[in-house]
Amino acid sequence: MALLHEDRLFDAEPQARAVARALYQTIRDLPLVSPHGHTDPRWYAQNENFADPAQLLIVPDHYIFRMLFSQGVRLEDLGVPSADGRAVETDGRTIWRRFASHYHLFRGTPSRLWLDHTLETLFGIDAPLTEANADDQFDRIADCLARPEFKPRALFERFNIEVIATTDGALDDLRWHRMIAESGWSGRVVTAYRPDAVVDPDFEGFAGNLDRLAEITGEDTGRWQGYLDAHRARRAYFKTFGATSSDHGHPTAETANLGPAEAEALFERVRTGRAEPGERALFRAQMLTEMAKMSLDDGLVLQIHPGAWRNHSDPMTKAFGRDKGFDIPTRTDYVAALKPLLDAVGCEPGLTVIAFTLDETSYARELAPLAGVYPALRLGPPWWFHDSPEGMRRFREMATETAGFYNTVGFNDDTRAFPSIPARHDVARRIDCAFLARLVVEHRLREDEAFALAPELAYGLAKRAYRL
Amino acid sequence: MALLHEDRLFDAEPQARAVARALYQTIRDLPLVSPHGHTDPRWYAQNENFADPAQLLIVPDHYIFRMLFSQGVRLEDLGVPSADGRAVETDGRTIWRRFASHYHLFRGTPSRLWLDHTLETLFGIDAPLTEANADDQFDRIADCLARPEFKPRALFERFNIEVIATTDGALDDLRWHRMIAESGWSGRVVTAYRPDAVVDPDFEGFAGNLDRLAEITGEDTGRWQGYLDAHRARRAYFKTFGATSSDHGHPTAETANLGPAEAEALFERVRTGRAEPGERALFRAQMLTEMAKMSLDDGLVLQIHPGAWRNHSDPMTKAFGRDKGFDIPTRTDYVAALKPLLDAVGCEPGLTVIAFTLDETSYARELAPLAGVYPALRLGPPWWFHDSPEGMRRFREMATETAGFYNTVGFNDDTRAFPSIPARHDVARRIDCAFLARLVVEHRLREDEAFALAPELAYGLAKRAYRL
Amino acid sequence: MALLHEDRLFDAEPQARAVARALYQTIRDLPLVSPHGHTDPRWYAQNENFADPAQLLIVPDHYIFRMLFSQGVRLEDLGVPSADGRAVETDGRTIWRRFASHYHLFRGTPSRLWLDHTLETLFGIDAPLTEANADDQFDRIADCLARPEFKPRALFERFNIEVIATTDGALDDLRWHRMIAESGWSGRVVTAYRPDAVVDPDFEGFAGNLDRLAEITGEDTGRWQGYLDAHRARRAYFKTFGATSSDHGHPTAETANLGPAEAEALFERVRTGRAEPGERALFRAQMLTEMAKMSLDDGLVLQIHPGAWRNHSDPMTKAFGRDKGFDIPTRTDYVAALKPLLDAVGCEPGLTVIAFTLDETSYARELAPLAGVYPALRLGPPWWFHDSPEGMRRFREMATETAGFYNTVGFNDDTRAFPSIPARHDVARRIDCAFLARLVVEHRLREDEAFALAPELAYGLAKRAYRL
Repeated sequence: MALLHEDRLFDAEPQARAVARALYQTIRDLPLVSPHGHTDPRWYAQNENFADPAQLLIVPDHYIFRMLFSQGVRLEDLGVPSADGRAVETDGRTIWRRFASHYHLFRGTPSRLWLDHTLETLFGIDAPLTEANADDQFDRIADCLARPEFKPRALFERFNIEVIATTDGALDDLRWHRMIAESGWSGRVVTAYRPDAVVDPDFEGFAGNLDRLAEITGEDTGRWQGYLDAHRARRAYFKTFGATSSDHGHPTAETANLGPAEAEALFERVRTGRAEPGERALFRAQMLTEMAKMSLDDGLVLQIHPGAWRNHSDPMTKAFGRDKGFDIPTRTDYVAALKPLLDAVGCEPGLTVIAFTLDETSYARELAPLAGVYPALRLGPPWWFHDSPEGMRRFREMATETAGFYNTVGFNDDTRAFPSIPARHDVARRIDCAFLARLVVEHRLREDEAFALAPELAYGLAKRAYRL
Repeated sequence: MALLHEDRLFDAEPQARAVARALYQTIRDLPLVSPHGHTDPRWYAQNENFADPAQLLIVPDHYIFRMLFSQGVRLEDLGVPSADGRAVETDGRTIWRRFASHYHLFRGTPSRLWLDHTLETLFGIDAPLTEANADDQFDRIADCLARPEFKPRALFERFNIEVIATTDGALDDLRWHRMIAESGWSGRVVTAYRPDAVVDPDFEGFAGNLDRLAEITGEDTGRWQGYLDAHRARRAYFKTFGATSSDHGHPTAETANLGPAEAEALFERVRTGRAEPGERALFRAQMLTEMAKMSLDDGLVLQIHPGAWRNHSDPMTKAFGRDKGFDIPTRTDYVAALKPLLDAVGCEPGLTVIAFTLDETSYARELAPLAGVYPALRLGPPWWFHDSPEGMRRFREMATETAGFYNTVGFNDDTRAFPSIPARHDVARRIDCAFLARLVVEHRLREDEAFALAPELAYGLAKRAYRL
Repeated sequence: MALLHEDRLFDAEPQARAVARALYQTIRDLPLVSPHGHTDPRWYAQNENFADPAQLLIVPDHYIFRMLFSQGVRLEDLGVPSADGRAVETDGRTIWRRFASHYHLFRGTPSRLWLDHTLETLFGIDAPLTEANADDQFDRIADCLARPEFKPRALFERFNIEVIATTDGALDDLRWHRMIAESGWSGRVVTAYRPDAVVDPDFEGFAGNLDRLAEITGEDTGRWQGYLDAHRARRAYFKTFGATSSDHGHPTAETANLGPAEAEALFERVRTGRAEPGERALFRAQMLTEMAKMSLDDGLVLQIHPGAWRNHSDPMTKAFGRDKGFDIPTRTDYVAALKPLLDAVGCEPGLTVIAFTLDETSYARELAPLAGVYPALRLGPPWWFHDSPEGMRRFREMATETAGFYNTVGFNDDTRAFPSIPARHDVARRIDCAFLARLVVEHRLREDEAFALAPELAYGLAKRAYRL
């Protein structure tokens, strides 16, 4: 039994399916543009074979281990690294068996779609994963991973990736990007500027980070102007490694546009650790607008990723550290929050701000109306928990009528799970074709228009919005 | 290629489509009842030919120019009047060409459905608008508009409008309504009482507006009782021009029910400009309840349209003034907000309060449960950004199970775009038929019931709810 | 004409319908597990025939009388008992006629589905209820109700109920449960521990309730530890009557986890009536965590039912008392609210906390992400206003991709309308089969997996989650 059906994710109604299938045929082989993601540039730089199947597919994938944990599997038993020194499973085969024996938990989830796609298309597996065949599949995957055609660069080429962005902290020396550039390899891997560590006063080691920023740039980050200049310098440096965007993962979408004296005074309080929580939030808000203003000069696309309550469980954060599947979406306002930034630069035609959300109620109510009028604003694709068939469908249904298609920016895979990249793009392309097909069979869009739109949603919009 | 398919907006599944088509056949030719809208009564009064195509179809339509602006077209270049004296395009043909060259932006939007419907049914155009045929279509439309059968009254009759309401400010002298009444024309154009300018302390020129209200009515608007009497007088005056409703466009749905002394004291502070923001909001809240109480006496239906952040962009408001596409929906609470009014008059069977929302999350959570129990409360149709196929579908799916059909009030076109009125009603009728058809083919409703409901949704409910 | 179509609630698309039908065949006859509901244990204890049709089907059903009231029928005229002594209709036939003449109001609502199912399957009625046949149907129902096979225990067995839970207050002596136990009847009726009256300081007679709790348990409820011990005692007592769960109907989902001294001080203020509103809310919040900790010891499943604004209308509450259809959902936060409880016990694999919501926006944004990681947390089925075809469909579409199926707990009928229980389970089973069928025909789930899931959703998950 093959794991993947050729008509998967298309509407079952025959006319709609036929249109979706025809649309998909024209875009399935377009190159992948991956303008926002979290793969490790070291992979492409060193081009070493990946470790065993569990370390590649299970251990780093928070979608997977959070679901297993929710049903009673301990993170220790899945090999998730601990923060408090407790021992964790290190045997890949044992981890894989535990995963296999719980694979039914993923029924109805996107992880299941991505996994099956990876198993079939990458490793040639055509039987559903079970406890019984777990060892066989593990061996097969391990065997593949040891071969040269499964090295990162070979996979990059096999995946037909035209360009991929990694996300790197403002203090990163981009050594892997340099190694890639100097290697002569033709694969296009660019960086993106992620300055949270030197923008968010609540970030661990903020004060020390500012000092480090000063060292790296030679600017005086003890002063407001020097601090801004240091950002400018880092942005320029990141651009030399292909960066076309910055990325900002704030708790809220708050922006501010203080006068210079106010901003300077606020920075002084923040820098010296005297700022109240509200002031620290205000500083983050102000920095979004500062970044947008820098974008007017240097052309970087600004991405806002707000609304996650990070590391929601105190005991689990203590035991396993950050980013272990305990990030939970919260209600997010955009209308009041973005106003200061939009008043300042929202009508600049040369600026691109891409807003993401974890609060789907904002699609039709806030984000589509905002993106449907402000020239600088575009809507990011469904993000994180909403990067799924139903999530994508809701996004198109709720955003398109007010924002249209052209105020959206195509698909982001947003992943650190390298092997899943083709699967994720494939899901997005299929869902978009299914959505266009529905518009066609309901006579809301002509067929020729759907054929014009499909490659835009799959490829063109991402490339143009991110200036890649 | 014809622009409109006869089965547009019906589900593609053949059984559902067949039922929808059969239902639609029975209601497609019902007269249009337009109980809430913003067409200019002067058109019907003077009955002069409309100006050129761009001035009729593009320049006044905020759905259209906001989308074009979002993709980099300047409002100046679309002929949108400025507020700061800057020059704007005046040549209709040039504006039309700019619109035509961006027509693809409207793919997937209701504007596109409305435009195509207007172009085909009103102007006999059967080719999709493109840059190449823009001039031809402009000429054709211009030629039509110059003919007597395209004068406002002729169109009114051709559109099969049984009755249309305009919305007029409390200080309006209703001269155009008088001219219509005195003209002997049989078309039924009624007014609606929109007192925001003399109810909202934040309205421009509020104090002067109160003076003007005093002059018009002969009541002493310097006193609370005189102010209320002035409203009563204006409502009575509006009723002589057919008004059956009042309309209130508040930022929130807040209502209040203060004691007489408190209300009087609050009015005094508001009137003299000494009220704090919270007091001004409280005054608006109180006035909704006062209006509801007046409705108990004079029978006007009270419409609440809350939840828009008006004129969101400061620089654009400065440059182009109010109502230029920068109104953005916000989260809106109804449960706490409406309680004072509902406690006061919500169980009065003689009262009708129609609540609208821009926050779709309130449909199933708040509005349907409220309208499903309070006799005075009815649900307005999907409004503004949600007046669209997906928006209407979501409304029926989210409101019907708790509120039923009979606590809704049919369709409002809510438009100042006169030529689009038949298109808008047609979209609503088709979507409602498609929804009923789905209930039928899923055996949740008998076919005879769907045939009984379809004319109610298209015609009967609006007529009865608005007492027209 | 039969009222029920065999394919009702299945998608009309033939492939999807065929799969849904096949799935449904395998589960339609599974026993009903009803782990959360509000039927009266007295019925099963005394096993007396039900009174007339109106007293059984109309008068106690708030879904029904609220809809009639919303369209102008007075509660007095429907026989709803008054709180202020006003006379109400007592003639069942008259009430039934009033209901019949308004039956069209229920088109598109779940009440209609439940009623038709009851009328056809229980009373053998196959004609739609109308004013004309109201008397005939009344007579037929009345005739049935007088027969022995319509006594509560006979119906229980006919309904194929494997186990049903009632909800009983902490102060209840459970006499009916004792009578059932002593009767030797094999029907399994269990209780559930609902301590609102002794947990919520805003509950009527709270102080007296604490005294009564002391009397019943012999514990000193004047002290914090004694109060907690009294709860422990009552929970143990309830367990002897089969209780496997507690149930908590708080206004919000707030939880707290105070230190012992703080908790004790708070209890002292609450107990003596000196607590401010915020402190009373904090006490309710603290008690959820206390209950969860007791669950760790005694194994009771903790159910949280937050988010209803109870008795929204002051005048109607005065006239008719509590629970008369005026409960309105409100926006509900879970992410911040549940954190204290989840930090304390959320990762305990032995604990089960089931969260319900009246705010559907929390499904995808908050509840699925929380339940998709915390081992103790499960998602209750769509509740109250959302216990409907569209509501269930939205729940599966919004929750499954992040929480999966196995973090949900099957269906609760949650009803005091005993005859409607089979209808409610049937709707849930059909909607779940339709949802699974869609996943199958869109090739997101294999057919064998759907057949494995269907009985879990219909039976297995409820049984295991509630430990029944």
